[in-house]
Amino acid sequence: MANCLVAQSGGPTTVINASLAGVVKANQLNPIYDTVYGGLNGIEGILEERLYDLTNMSEFENRVLRQTPSSALGSCRYKLKRDDDKDYRRLVEVMDKYNIEILFYIGGNDSMDTVDALSAWAKRNNVAKRFVGIPKTVDNDLMVTDHCPGFASAAKYVNSVVTSTWLDYNVYTRSEVFVLETMGRDAGWLAGSAVISGKVDLLILPEVDFDKEVFLSQVKKCMETKGKCYIVVSEGAHYADGSYIAASAAANDGFGHAVLGGAGNALKNMILEAGVAPRVKVQDLSTAQRCANYTQSFVDVDEAFKLGMSGHMRSSNPNFTGQVVGVVRKPGKEYDVEYIAGPAENFANHVKNVPAEWIKPNYEGLTQEAYEYFTPLIQGEPTLIMENGVPAYVKPYHMK
Amino acid sequence: MANCLVAQSGGPTTVINASLAGVVKANQLNPIYDTVYGGLNGIEGILEERLYDLTNMSEFENRVLRQTPSSALGSCRYKLKRDDDKDYRRLVEVMDKYNIEILFYIGGNDSMDTVDALSAWAKRNNVAKRFVGIPKTVDNDLMVTDHCPGFASAAKYVNSVVTSTWLDYNVYTRSEVFVLETMGRDAGWLAGSAVISGKVDLLILPEVDFDKEVFLSQVKKCMETKGKCYIVVSEGAHYADGSYIAASAAANDGFGHAVLGGAGNALKNMILEAGVAPRVKVQDLSTAQRCANYTQSFVDVDEAFKLGMSGHMRSSNPNFTGQVVGVVRKPGKEYDVEYIAGPAENFANHVKNVPAEWIKPNYEGLTQEAYEYFTPLIQGEPTLIMENGVPAYVKPYHMK
Repeated sequence: MANCLVAQSGGPTTVINASLAGVVKANQLNPIYDTVYGGLNGIEGILEERLYDLTNMSEFENRVLRQTPSSALGSCRYKLKRDDDKDYRRLVEVMDKYNIEILFYIGGNDSMDTVDALSAWAKRNNVAKRFVGIPKTVDNDLMVTDHCPGFASAAKYVNSVVTSTWLDYNVYTRSEVFVLETMGRDAGWLAGSAVISGKVDLLILPEVDFDKEVFLSQVKKCMETKGKCYIVVSEGAHYADGSYIAASAAANDGFGHAVLGGAGNALKNMILEAGVAPRVKVQDLSTAQRCANYTQSFVDVDEAFKLGMSGHMRSSNPNFTGQVVGVVRKPGKEYDVEYIAGPAENFANHVKNVPAEWIKPNYEGLTQEAYEYFTPLIQGEPTLIMENGVPAYVKPYHMK
Repeated sequence: MANCLVAQSGGPTTVINASLAGVVKANQLNPIYDTVYGGLNGIEGILEERLYDLTNMSEFENRVLRQTPSSALGSCRYKLKRDDDKDYRRLVEVMDKYNIEILFYIGGNDSMDTVDALSAWAKRNNVAKRFVGIPKTVDNDLMVTDHCPGFASAAKYVNSVVTSTWLDYNVYTRSEVFVLETMGRDAGWLAGSAVISGKVDLLILPEVDFDKEVFLSQVKKCMETKGKCYIVVSEGAHYADGSYIAASAAANDGFGHAVLGGAGNALKNMILEAGVAPRVKVQDLSTAQRCANYTQSFVDVDEAFKLGMSGHMRSSNPNFTGQVVGVVRKPGKEYDVEYIAGPAENFANHVKNVPAEWIKPNYEGLTQEAYEYFTPLIQGEPTLIMENGVPAYVKPYHMK
């Protein structure tokens, strides 16, 4: 029998390890691979033969892994070269050396594109290796799948912080604006999810070109009506010319993406300069939102685990390659999903945006469709195993 | 029989409502007051006769109140005038009108000082009104009491965020500094609590004058050793001349305290300018840390509730005035506290700092004594009642 390899890439999430735990557990339930190798630090570490044997992980470790945020195998921002196939050949060399037949790659848009590229290259060159994608991203911007593992827990955190900070900023009678900034470079799903808290007065998404004048007049109206204004803004909010309102696009993450941050403070400065409110507080959720395992969504952990299992289980079909697993929402009142798989090219390199028809004009939030979409995703809490007052975690394999 | 009044003041915490719930529940167990009035928006609202009847609160509402962050009665930053006693006389007028004999004031340093001033004034002027303090503050800087309700939940949140963001920033092999900024103007308890996570490389407290040179050399050493450096900084970190490293002390909160923020970014800029690390991420916990009810400490909620009860119960003694309730840690291995009360003047207007002998030199953290102090406080989690994916809350009484 052959072995399999599982790796993680891109920015981590709160449940990316639940998918890893799913792959490992599936192989314990039906050991179609002799060894389940974890590739450390994504493709980057695999090319350096940094592998870790996960085959016999205990049930306890598997359970703690499901509540461990961040990527337990480590991650990378390394992009495989496409112009020559040196990296591809080196990858196959490593897979051959360890008798690895298939790679399960847990990642976001770029990683699903890598799955597509690798499987296409393997087919073209008659290389008997398979590549399967398991999605994750707090940005929720992959096509085909109804939503992406990692998003729902981040959305649950956003809603928890919105609700509690809304209660906090209301304690005083003074006039005050609160601005909460979430992740979301190209798509506003995470910021948008905040509407279900019922606390958001104004919502600024990357899907709508930012109009400073309209925005300020809306803040003014809100302040005149109730003396308070709760604003949620996505880091990727931008003007019509494409420039980010954060205007701190100097650095990039290795894929040519601008590293954002500061949209909240940009809005604060606008409001204070225009004099439409005397006081503005900013809460930038920053890194915490993608690793807040103390607010894991049960739905999210459960689906992430099952998607890991599904990827493994479907791979018993020897033709299963270049595919990504996902979920499609079933019709009906009760929330449920169908587990699906489809070609990686359909998932990757297109950004799924918040539908234009869900977005109300003048930053006034989202329509009922959005509430129905988001609400079931943040329901339920797993029973966490605690250690020293915080959720227990598995020591990252790449740090052992 | 007479009535009682309970109010909240200052910055809210995650468990300030648990103390309120304790006062209300105690009067249900032993109705020594006919009516339990809540004063809305602290002293400010009481002077305007904005009262809310809490006497017959249901057990369900009481339970949800204990997990409701922020001040359910609203708060104020209004400081009673001391130079003339107009405010005092007006307060007594309102109390007389509603047949209120005693005020339970839940608050921090300034509020305990108010309790002291009011009770002293009443005694001097033979006014038969009593004033009792119930402490709260995430800053943990009140004297006499071993710790302050609100601190432990904030510390649990700090440790949860430190642990999860530490896992997150370690996913990549790249060199990186992470800076987490906590509240703590004058005392570094909250920042200091982060040491029990075991993740903190450098700790910057207000208790130690900041030395940029020493700090940068410590970051450099850390980066050379392991290529990573996790820093926790208190918002109140300052140079020897008293100027805050955040240098944004332009605004103030009405008590003449500077409104801080930005210590994390100040450190980031220092590190990047000095070139001792190529990349620095900042997480400013901001408002979220004092209202993160999704990480309430069981010990904290329980003690806050009991302190509310204790204040009420002790007030059956007609001489009980000008006093503040608190906890003193019992000796022995197992964590336990004795519930005490003492003169408000002993609690207020002195800042309790992290003991100098607990602070290691060169920002290298705290000694074993600190671990033993902090660890028991963040243990345990209450079973939260959830609603729409986030902890349920009581709609603030001042907003009804």
